[in-house]
Amino acid sequence: MSGGRKRVFRGPRRRTAPGAAPGTLTFDADAPPAVLRVIGVSPERIREAPSIDVREIPRWLEEWPVVWIDLVGLGQGEELRGLGEHLGLHALALEDVANLGQRAKVESYESELFVVTRMAYPNDPATEQLSLFLGEGWVLTVQEREGDCFDAVRARLREDGRRIRSRGADYLAYALLDAVVDSYFPAIDTIGDHLDELEEVVLGDPDPQVAQSLHRNRRALISLRKSIVPHRDVFQSLSRDLHPLIDEETRLFLRDVYDHVLRINDLVDSFRELTGDLMATYMTVVSNRMNEVMKVLTIIATIFIPLGFIAGLYGMNFDPSVSPLNMPELGWRWGYPFALGLMLAVGGGFVLYMWRKGWLK
Amino acid sequence: MSGGRKRVFRGPRRRTAPGAAPGTLTFDADAPPAVLRVIGVSPERIREAPSIDVREIPRWLEEWPVVWIDLVGLGQGEELRGLGEHLGLHALALEDVANLGQRAKVESYESELFVVTRMAYPNDPATEQLSLFLGEGWVLTVQEREGDCFDAVRARLREDGRRIRSRGADYLAYALLDAVVDSYFPAIDTIGDHLDELEEVVLGDPDPQVAQSLHRNRRALISLRKSIVPHRDVFQSLSRDLHPLIDEETRLFLRDVYDHVLRINDLVDSFRELTGDLMATYMTVVSNRMNEVMKVLTIIATIFIPLGFIAGLYGMNFDPSVSPLNMPELGWRWGYPFALGLMLAVGGGFVLYMWRKGWLK
Amino acid sequence: MSGGRKRVFRGPRRRTAPGAAPGTLTFDADAPPAVLRVIGVSPERIREAPSIDVREIPRWLEEWPVVWIDLVGLGQGEELRGLGEHLGLHALALEDVANLGQRAKVESYESELFVVTRMAYPNDPATEQLSLFLGEGWVLTVQEREGDCFDAVRARLREDGRRIRSRGADYLAYALLDAVVDSYFPAIDTIGDHLDELEEVVLGDPDPQVAQSLHRNRRALISLRKSIVPHRDVFQSLSRDLHPLIDEETRLFLRDVYDHVLRINDLVDSFRELTGDLMATYMTVVSNRMNEVMKVLTIIATIFIPLGFIAGLYGMNFDPSVSPLNMPELGWRWGYPFALGLMLAVGGGFVLYMWRKGWLK
Amino acid sequence: MSGGRKRVFRGPRRRTAPGAAPGTLTFDADAPPAVLRVIGVSPERIREAPSIDVREIPRWLEEWPVVWIDLVGLGQGEELRGLGEHLGLHALALEDVANLGQRAKVESYESELFVVTRMAYPNDPATEQLSLFLGEGWVLTVQEREGDCFDAVRARLREDGRRIRSRGADYLAYALLDAVVDSYFPAIDTIGDHLDELEEVVLGDPDPQVAQSLHRNRRALISLRKSIVPHRDVFQSLSRDLHPLIDEETRLFLRDVYDHVLRINDLVDSFRELTGDLMATYMTVVSNRMNEVMKVLTIIATIFIPLGFIAGLYGMNFDPSVSPLNMPELGWRWGYPFALGLMLAVGGGFVLYMWRKGWLK
Amino acid sequence: MSGGRKRVFRGPRRRTAPGAAPGTLTFDADAPPAVLRVIGVSPERIREAPSIDVREIPRWLEEWPVVWIDLVGLGQGEELRGLGEHLGLHALALEDVANLGQRAKVESYESELFVVTRMAYPNDPATEQLSLFLGEGWVLTVQEREGDCFDAVRARLREDGRRIRSRGADYLAYALLDAVVDSYFPAIDTIGDHLDELEEVVLGDPDPQVAQSLHRNRRALISLRKSIVPHRDVFQSLSRDLHPLIDEETRLFLRDVYDHVLRINDLVDSFRELTGDLMATYMTVVSNRMNEVMKVLTIIATIFIPLGFIAGLYGMNFDPSVSPLNMPELGWRWGYPFALGLMLAVGGGFVLYMWRKGWLK
Repeated sequence: MSGGRKRVFRGPRRRTAPGAAPGTLTFDADAPPAVLRVIGVSPERIREAPSIDVREIPRWLEEWPVVWIDLVGLGQGEELRGLGEHLGLHALALEDVANLGQRAKVESYESELFVVTRMAYPNDPATEQLSLFLGEGWVLTVQEREGDCFDAVRARLREDGRRIRSRGADYLAYALLDAVVDSYFPAIDTIGDHLDELEEVVLGDPDPQVAQSLHRNRRALISLRKSIVPHRDVFQSLSRDLHPLIDEETRLFLRDVYDHVLRINDLVDSFRELTGDLMATYMTVVSNRMNEVMKVLTIIATIFIPLGFIAGLYGMNFDPSVSPLNMPELGWRWGYPFALGLMLAVGGGFVLYMWRKGWLK
Repeated sequence: MSGGRKRVFRGPRRRTAPGAAPGTLTFDADAPPAVLRVIGVSPERIREAPSIDVREIPRWLEEWPVVWIDLVGLGQGEELRGLGEHLGLHALALEDVANLGQRAKVESYESELFVVTRMAYPNDPATEQLSLFLGEGWVLTVQEREGDCFDAVRARLREDGRRIRSRGADYLAYALLDAVVDSYFPAIDTIGDHLDELEEVVLGDPDPQVAQSLHRNRRALISLRKSIVPHRDVFQSLSRDLHPLIDEETRLFLRDVYDHVLRINDLVDSFRELTGDLMATYMTVVSNRMNEVMKVLTIIATIFIPLGFIAGLYGMNFDPSVSPLNMPELGWRWGYPFALGLMLAVGGGFVLYMWRKGWLK
Repeated sequence: MSGGRKRVFRGPRRRTAPGAAPGTLTFDADAPPAVLRVIGVSPERIREAPSIDVREIPRWLEEWPVVWIDLVGLGQGEELRGLGEHLGLHALALEDVANLGQRAKVESYESELFVVTRMAYPNDPATEQLSLFLGEGWVLTVQEREGDCFDAVRARLREDGRRIRSRGADYLAYALLDAVVDSYFPAIDTIGDHLDELEEVVLGDPDPQVAQSLHRNRRALISLRKSIVPHRDVFQSLSRDLHPLIDEETRLFLRDVYDHVLRINDLVDSFRELTGDLMATYMTVVSNRMNEVMKVLTIIATIFIPLGFIAGLYGMNFDPSVSPLNMPELGWRWGYPFALGLMLAVGGGFVLYMWRKGWLK
Repeated sequence: MSGGRKRVFRGPRRRTAPGAAPGTLTFDADAPPAVLRVIGVSPERIREAPSIDVREIPRWLEEWPVVWIDLVGLGQGEELRGLGEHLGLHALALEDVANLGQRAKVESYESELFVVTRMAYPNDPATEQLSLFLGEGWVLTVQEREGDCFDAVRARLREDGRRIRSRGADYLAYALLDAVVDSYFPAIDTIGDHLDELEEVVLGDPDPQVAQSLHRNRRALISLRKSIVPHRDVFQSLSRDLHPLIDEETRLFLRDVYDHVLRINDLVDSFRELTGDLMATYMTVVSNRMNEVMKVLTIIATIFIPLGFIAGLYGMNFDPSVSPLNMPELGWRWGYPFALGLMLAVGGGFVLYMWRKGWLK
Repeated sequence: MSGGRKRVFRGPRRRTAPGAAPGTLTFDADAPPAVLRVIGVSPERIREAPSIDVREIPRWLEEWPVVWIDLVGLGQGEELRGLGEHLGLHALALEDVANLGQRAKVESYESELFVVTRMAYPNDPATEQLSLFLGEGWVLTVQEREGDCFDAVRARLREDGRRIRSRGADYLAYALLDAVVDSYFPAIDTIGDHLDELEEVVLGDPDPQVAQSLHRNRRALISLRKSIVPHRDVFQSLSRDLHPLIDEETRLFLRDVYDHVLRINDLVDSFRELTGDLMATYMTVVSNRMNEVMKVLTIIATIFIPLGFIAGLYGMNFDPSVSPLNMPELGWRWGYPFALGLMLAVGGGFVLYMWRKGWLK
């Protein structure tokens, strides 16, 4: 939970100035170069290319019934612009792809469906923008950097005879979106495990770091919630509204993804409530401890300060020889036992008083 | 409230990896074997089989007007796959059955109605998934493990001449769903009893364990609420929308179940507010106690520390014989009474001051 | 606020087990016998019977244009079952009548309208279920026990020439429902009076019982709110939807009741906010007090502990005769005044420090 | 904020008992007599009568195109009943007029439009009910007592050639309602000024009265909010729905009033949040102060109590002459310097410890 | 965050009295004079005039296909009234322009579209009202004072061959509104940076100023939220409803602005939650610190006060020569070692006790 600490809710600083023209694509000058990965799929075979030039795209689209184009990183935007041309992507959509930090949303353009989602990672409250375009026979995904949650999808594509190879591009898009949404489960599970530990600590013998740990988990939850909530509208729309590019059966699968989004929402909300509750419980534990510490101090001070006073009293140096009024006790035969007895009486009295108050339990 | 402590909000860890194909059924390798119980019902008679093989199902369906198939546990999924084939269940529904930890939902497939609900248990914040399929003449329930809330339904089925035997499968499904929803009442009642006790403790003489107990109940309420809330949509849909498998009169009964769901929601919400309020009240009690402890300490210290100082003053060993300025009081005739009087005056002054402040009440 | 303390949010413990057949009427074995009161009303005259047998009902229905049947208590359910038969009441409605603790709701059956409401009492956070059936020419009310809020309605019935006698059964039902809703005003007024007092105490000189009193009022408000909120839907439905048994003009009156429900809701919500705010204000008062106590302790201790140390210093018994380094001050001519001056300087310094900090104000 | 303290959320105690007949008008026996003010308006001229008899109303209605009847106080209800007869007002509307403490609402009767609103006053959390009837050519306003926010409207009526004189009664009604809603701005501004001051106090050097002042403002906000919120529905309805008595252009003006209501709502909500936040900030200030006080106490006590103990040690009277083990230090040549050095070392050690803990900053 | 401190939620004090006629334009007598800037745009060329007279407007409108009129400041309202005449603006719209402090809203009049928005500035919680009128071939913006967020738009207009010059007035209006909404990003980013710093401080070693800083940021968020929230409805309406002056494609761009509004909302809400959470965490840090301080005090006092008492005991001056009962220990051979041993035992006992309690960790 360390690396994503800075600017965690906001994503990278917005690069276009307020008032800039829409469709302006500005890029981070020292971003690593973008990598264009392509997988062509037909029911019978599959071909993967780890890095192609953007001009090869049309040939792939002709050759394969379903092509998954995966752009990793934005670089200086040449690949993105090239893809925009070859696939006919809308300028506004491209701007959303380039301006990271978008909320999840779905936009239906004439010849393509544009979906923005955000992938989650365990131990990292920041989420990564994944933009997905679905067209006739192709799916384009754009991710911020190397590393994603699509390995299982790739494995399914490589395996012969799987449903995912015989169905169209919409089913592939569903599989990818499903993987994105499911990436929240491990992230939330990690937080859940932390909370389980923190709960035991709070209910046991909490140390002061608990508050900070609770805060970190809570912040991760706020961040995850900010990312996941807009997915609700996205998948409700995808599973309910008619999109010409998505067939009936795939809609049914997308509805299942929608259910997952709801579950993730429920979990995040329950965890947020739980952290709030743990914080309150921790506060009472701290107060109770302070109470206990104060009680010990009060008991000791209440007993020994008066006794110390009595001792001090008979430590005064008034001269008994000057006058019989001056500390005659010092010369009594039973003087010392009398003083000790007085102390015992006073101390015992306070002990009794506090015992009655229930402080000695 | 002990057993369900770990992973209580999340159900068992999800078994399918993100990106796995939908409809993939993966099972816990060391799960106990599943048991398939069947009850055939006709208005005149009833037959129960405590454990049958899945291939016997078609014969039961032919023979009896209404068949209740009850799958207890998932085992390695063979029974579930067999039932899917014989009853024509949808692959996505089967995935939801196998992936425990679903939210309550209702899905209408072509030839069956699929309902996911969650059963509650007293003293256990975790809820158990109960999947129910309603088809033409049969009801299939899948529960996670042995032990459920259907004993009263079974008793009603066994008794001759009861409405439940002469009505169709939809009425049986209603009776089972009603039992599931009503299972929340004892669970909430247990929490209510705990809160009644905790309230008395808080308003009386609370000990530090109160915060932990409140937290445990609150967590149980968060968990119950997470389980019950989605039932609202389920039963609103069941009692309002037209489903070909549910007749008009049964819809009326389902509306009654919907009312129960609303009541449970109300109770959970009221209890959550109450625990929050008890927590706040407890915090003020703790603060008031600390105040009282501090007041005793302050009273004792304020009175005796100055007196101790005076005593110490006259315990100094300055040599009166060297100079008449050196502690002449020690040689006064009324020196000791003067010192005692000074102490009385100072102590009495502080007592008066504190009595005026109202601290001695 | 004493009697209703136990199980206050839940009403009496539900008697039917989860899974019991709907329409099962189970009763408390040692409930007092039910009493059946009837009032027959025509524009010209009125007849009241304090206790009749259920078999006399049909004769009353024939004889009078409007009959108000008032069942007080459920007894062993014979009267209720009898009424169900004679008036043709729906089994599910009867179950709701017998199972106390229902939320307010309205159900439209073929030949009757069934309304569940809850009456409030001042000084008692628990509310009583009042079930009302409206049929052609009759109104049936079922209350849990003797004592209700209908005395004013009865008085209006007895008085000659009042609108209530010449209008139909729907107007009588309206008058009764209006009385039920208005019963919340005195209950809320009582809480309001308590809060007025508590507010003065909190803003004045609060004692530790304030937190408990606030809690009790807050709990009463949670309970009242749980009871009143569902009435909103009930009266919105009654005043907006068309029910064949309620004529246009009566609907207008029911809309007025709906306005009252909204006002009660507003009041309860404002009071809940107020109690929360009072709690927070009380907490700061407690904290401020503790601050004041601590300040007195700190001031006294900070001044006198160092002085005591100085006094103790010169009470040490090092032998000045052994060495000139051993406490030569004791033999100084100005030794004692020097010591007193040192004390004055140290004490004065601390006083100055604390005065600058603003602690002595 | 003083006068309105008692019963501030509830308005005057309801006078009709629960169950009383609707339309019953009961009045406060010692209310001051009602005053009936009338203004007749035509585009060319205007006539004002400060107090007329209710029987003169019909003559005014005949004579003037637009008549504004303003009833100040309810007295014993004769004027109200008279107006009800002459203007054909609905019985339920009259009951709402007489029963003060209504929420804002709008009711459309056959020949009149009935609007209940509430006027706000600065420095008074209580609001005053203003009932307004709009009929064909007349507007009737009923206010609780002398003093309103209509002076600017009257001035505009008196001025020749103003739009308000040439437009119909609906425009006059709009002008009055606009004045009522705008009366909230000064009331909220007063609270805003208080909060500005309190904020400076909290962020500066808060004294214990801050909590009480915050509470008072918060209560005033709760009260204003309760009054203003229902106006939202009222003016949304007035500006959107078609009412035969309100023409198209006036609807446009009413929409502007609706915008004002929304702004008032926004302000009240922001202020409520701000007070909550100020309260929390104040609590941390109090805690920080306590911390500071405790730190001073701890520093002083931690340094001087051990030193006092050392001093006390060498003040013991064991007899060195009896045995060489008995306090030989007292007879050492460097005894006293050794003791002082020990004290310096112990005291310095604690100072170092606390300096490292950062307590001395 | 300093300048906007006073009256920050309310904007300038409303100038029209409650009850004033609508359309009354009253102005601040000592406002600086208004400046009227105009830019005429055609696809081929552009002409800017930094300050023109309002009577020149019609000539500009004739000459150029798209004219952007930018009124900076209101002055005494002459320019505004002139514009109202020449452009045919509605009186109510003009009133909204003149009465600063409006919420964002959109109004569709016959020949123009009127939008009120609010611009944000970094480091200033106050927002500035920007009124925008869109007519056939012209856009009028009215801002409160010099300084806006339109520099990038002006730069785009000046550049040849940009889309913004060839599209109509609606696209120019979009570009301006987009700039207004995007002005919130830097404002929120500033707060985000503050919160990042504060978070580090809270989780590290918070000083008492943290509470005040958190409060200031929270207040800025409340203020920004109050400004931005109404934009949601404005841009939803602009991007969804049909307005004759806005063509299909521009609607698509406005939808993008709507997405930005949603993101800003999300950010503000997340930041509000975060500040609340930081406040709670800070409170526990303060409590923990107090605990630590108290523990040190208690440990020291608990050990040394009893030891001091023992030392005081043997400092008493009872005369051993008078009686063998009077402090015979003083004359023992092992008296002093015994006393030291007793102290060691007592002190060690308390240390052991506290070590067992875990206070010495």
